[in-house]
Amino acid sequence: MKIFGRDKVKLHGGYLYEKQELNKSVTVNSVYDRFDDTGRMEAFRCDYKEGDPKKPHFFWDSDVAKWIEGAAYILADNDIPELEAKIDAIVEQIEKNQWDDGYFNIYYTVIEQGKRFTNRDRHELYCAGHLMEAAVAYAEAKGKTKLLDCMEKYADLIYKIFIEEGSAEFTTPGHEEIELALMRMYRYTGKRKYLEMAAFFINERGQSPEAFPGENKYKISDFEGSKYNQSHLPVREQTEAVGHAVRAMYLYTGMAALASETKDEALAKACKTLWEDVTERKMYVTGGLGSTNIGEAFTSAYDLPNDTSYTETCAGIGLMFFANEMRALDTNAKYADAIERVVYNGVLSGISKGGNAFFYENPLEINLSEKYVNPWGKRRFPITQRVECFNCSCCPPNLVRLFPSLGVYAYGYEKGVLYVDQYVDSTLSEGALSCRMTTDYPRNGEVVIKAVGADKVALRIPFWCDSFSINKPYVMDRGYAVVENDGDEIRIDFDMTPKAVWADVRVIRDAGKICVMRGPVVYCAEGVDNGNNLHRFSIPADFGYELGEWDEFGLPILTVDAYEILSLGGVPYSRVSPRKQRTKLKLIPYNGFANRGESDMAVWLREE
Amino acid sequence: MKIFGRDKVKLHGGYLYEKQELNKSVTVNSVYDRFDDTGRMEAFRCDYKEGDPKKPHFFWDSDVAKWIEGAAYILADNDIPELEAKIDAIVEQIEKNQWDDGYFNIYYTVIEQGKRFTNRDRHELYCAGHLMEAAVAYAEAKGKTKLLDCMEKYADLIYKIFIEEGSAEFTTPGHEEIELALMRMYRYTGKRKYLEMAAFFINERGQSPEAFPGENKYKISDFEGSKYNQSHLPVREQTEAVGHAVRAMYLYTGMAALASETKDEALAKACKTLWEDVTERKMYVTGGLGSTNIGEAFTSAYDLPNDTSYTETCAGIGLMFFANEMRALDTNAKYADAIERVVYNGVLSGISKGGNAFFYENPLEINLSEKYVNPWGKRRFPITQRVECFNCSCCPPNLVRLFPSLGVYAYGYEKGVLYVDQYVDSTLSEGALSCRMTTDYPRNGEVVIKAVGADKVALRIPFWCDSFSINKPYVMDRGYAVVENDGDEIRIDFDMTPKAVWADVRVIRDAGKICVMRGPVVYCAEGVDNGNNLHRFSIPADFGYELGEWDEFGLPILTVDAYEILSLGGVPYSRVSPRKQRTKLKLIPYNGFANRGESDMAVWLREE
Repeated sequence: MKIFGRDKVKLHGGYLYEKQELNKSVTVNSVYDRFDDTGRMEAFRCDYKEGDPKKPHFFWDSDVAKWIEGAAYILADNDIPELEAKIDAIVEQIEKNQWDDGYFNIYYTVIEQGKRFTNRDRHELYCAGHLMEAAVAYAEAKGKTKLLDCMEKYADLIYKIFIEEGSAEFTTPGHEEIELALMRMYRYTGKRKYLEMAAFFINERGQSPEAFPGENKYKISDFEGSKYNQSHLPVREQTEAVGHAVRAMYLYTGMAALASETKDEALAKACKTLWEDVTERKMYVTGGLGSTNIGEAFTSAYDLPNDTSYTETCAGIGLMFFANEMRALDTNAKYADAIERVVYNGVLSGISKGGNAFFYENPLEINLSEKYVNPWGKRRFPITQRVECFNCSCCPPNLVRLFPSLGVYAYGYEKGVLYVDQYVDSTLSEGALSCRMTTDYPRNGEVVIKAVGADKVALRIPFWCDSFSINKPYVMDRGYAVVENDGDEIRIDFDMTPKAVWADVRVIRDAGKICVMRGPVVYCAEGVDNGNNLHRFSIPADFGYELGEWDEFGLPILTVDAYEILSLGGVPYSRVSPRKQRTKLKLIPYNGFANRGESDMAVWLREE
Repeated sequence: MKIFGRDKVKLHGGYLYEKQELNKSVTVNSVYDRFDDTGRMEAFRCDYKEGDPKKPHFFWDSDVAKWIEGAAYILADNDIPELEAKIDAIVEQIEKNQWDDGYFNIYYTVIEQGKRFTNRDRHELYCAGHLMEAAVAYAEAKGKTKLLDCMEKYADLIYKIFIEEGSAEFTTPGHEEIELALMRMYRYTGKRKYLEMAAFFINERGQSPEAFPGENKYKISDFEGSKYNQSHLPVREQTEAVGHAVRAMYLYTGMAALASETKDEALAKACKTLWEDVTERKMYVTGGLGSTNIGEAFTSAYDLPNDTSYTETCAGIGLMFFANEMRALDTNAKYADAIERVVYNGVLSGISKGGNAFFYENPLEINLSEKYVNPWGKRRFPITQRVECFNCSCCPPNLVRLFPSLGVYAYGYEKGVLYVDQYVDSTLSEGALSCRMTTDYPRNGEVVIKAVGADKVALRIPFWCDSFSINKPYVMDRGYAVVENDGDEIRIDFDMTPKAVWADVRVIRDAGKICVMRGPVVYCAEGVDNGNNLHRFSIPADFGYELGEWDEFGLPILTVDAYEILSLGGVPYSRVSPRKQRTKLKLIPYNGFANRGESDMAVWLREE
């Protein structure tokens, strides 16, 4: 289906709109300030000298590029001169410090000047890709093309070095990103050279071993080891999601975009196979991806531990990118389902209620009693509280650019059918096609749609939904309820009754457990409400419940009927069954956990 | 109560006797051969030169000392000239290579000659302690005192350096052992100097910071860090079991022995408090101790993860030592309960069915699907198959010395009362006191006892037992059923019906689960019998069962009624409850797991 650009869809209200507003008023500025504090902004002056504090890291360009991209989206809809001035100042430095031949990279300009394009895992092409995305975004938003001009010049150099000369010490990037960025450059400028470049980097990947250099911490020297960055096989032969989850999502996004534009069936097939592996076997119920911190990576099928999940915010956002390109490639509600699952859960959990603190990893379970640190070592334990900035602070600016582009995910169009993929209070307007959707979803399940210029409207029936009503006749097709469009209001009402959800039993850690979802929103229990050691509680699958006040998280609290196992007392083990009492368990939306101090937390609860 | 020496109690048949026989026929020789292969035996020649293969490790003396101790016990009851010759050959080397001043340590003789007594964590006093235990054992067994003479000379040197001069670079050992060994030297020789030395090392412990040297891998430089080796507080102020579990057990054993001999109430109180912390809050259902591989250590109360448990075989044996000294200090069945729990489960699991392969760590759960190794790292995963020798091969010779001394744990005597603490087919004989116990426990629950020279017989009612009958009137006292002894046969019959056992709910990982025990024997499910991913099974607390044939492990197999959750198919999460079917689950004694290849294993199973 055709996907609409960010400029064609406006959000007007509701839960996601409020997150968008918070991003504009708080997050974009907070992230800028932290980046400024840490030296990321002044780094663009490229005047760092050995011994100065705030030594530029090789991925700093990308952090700021993502911030520029997000700020540009905000500026497209809002006149904020101070914000625009900040972008312009950075762009000026980029223009000034770009090498004569088009090269731009802070690290290789001020730290290892003679070594550009020698180390596959130093994120040069990744940084270039993010700068390209920022350039397209800013040109689109404000018509200012200075950054785009710089990046086109840089792209020309990359073309020369990697394609014409083959003179770099590697063929494809260690961290993917430039592939999808070049696809954006191609789509925006129409220049086929960028398509050719994207195709080159995608097609060359995994064709022959490309080891990391010896100084890389992972010491990956064999072909098997290159699973880390999805270089173990030519991409069309890849069938399993492996390695670093964010890298994987960015690669797959580029692959799907290329497959769409070139009608490459073999590539499309690989994308579909990888999609299934990701979403049917390696995805948490929150949409989170990446089961281990070791390599921030996928592990094996159904290996989804809750307390040691990594589930990086960027991987969740990456899943949205991948899903969005899959929407374009293959009309099926499942892609929008994944977007809905992850945005309301594993992505929004990445940002604090106040909008200025972030999770890099998003665990599904916290047991503070296991946070035991021996003086001679410690177990792996996730961070339990969001922070304002990380050393590797990729997630905060990824959120800054995600929120203003949420409209992109809402609609699609194909052969006279308007697809409604996300339920958000919004307007779509492109040429003769327009749509006004009114809803407070997912606070409640009522959606009203009035579309003009489409023969039919296809309403996605969400993955979580087992009961809904539509005020028109409909036929189900690939996950959509399709109705004839006569211009009247289409009303759909999703049953938002909180329900138990089971995981497949192959997910070891969820066996015998259920999680509670209300609509697309995953709930969790926190120690701050229920006392720590949440394992003592169980809930029946048909739990009784009360909806609580619309609380600080903007979604209802649930109080569910539960059982609590009581302690045996001084005896560690007993042949006598421990006493169990009826109790109430308070549940909050998972994405709002850890906003009230450090506490135990559990998404999966024992089924009574 | 009075504890009887190894020479006073003979086992005649039954499950533990067969393990004792296997030790004599296989284990003692197999361990010798592996120690010979690895250079541990020739190291006693003290002719290692830089560059030679098989560089002596600083704990090799102790490995061989424990083997000598075990072999000596075997020789006490059996005439095996080849075995005796092996001991004599080692003793000859020790005598030959002992320094003129009495010092003996292979590592500091051939590797770091000028550095003796400079590094607290290089196990010098630990090795000395084990050699002292071996010396006492061999003198006792065969009347040969050459090794004891050497060790008395060494003890004199230690007295001079540590007590008279204070000239060592540390005051107390990093790895405890010499404390309990000196108590044995005192008890055997009657020389109070050894008691004084044991008291010195125990009393000085934790009085002031004693950092590990900088080269130690743990880099412990603060007082807090010294929890690792229980040096964080003076021993009488210690209330929580902390640090390396084996070190802790050896220290507590020495403390309890000293408290017994000196009637030191404060020390006895500390021992009782530590005992409670260990057995009520930090002990697995198998009797295993040590919740983490990091430092091979205790963590916090109720932190008892099954899949990452460390539960070293030596820590289980150490618990038996500690419990045995507690029996002497405080007449209460709970100490023998712990011995029974650990010997049948967490200790016997340490040795293979064939008697020649060993577990160092004894996990309570194995999920092979989580044994995922990324090329750039891996999760901690326990070893899943026993091996014949480790680099740190402390556990195998610890088993070699344990088996021939099992009789020590069986009986006690106090004020006219004969205490029967372990049910084994055996004879006790000391002076006018004698006892003949006939039983095939724990294969069945029938025990017949005929005692002479005791007014009363106190029969321990095991921790696991909720139903038993005795052919005499009895009164319960501190866990014992006490009967008047008229010289007639006393018959007791324990109900061996397999039963569910619950853990206290504060044990997070066991919440909602049960384990099956038959008598003292913990059962487990293995993938080899039931297919992997054992989490899919649940069993009701009042499970139906069949006893299977007396199998290769010498104890019955159980086939229990169970339920199995079926896969959802291609969907990872569902609002529809997964189908569940009735099935049978085969359970085997935990101590026999991993004898039929690598497989999933679980002790704790979901309660239906």
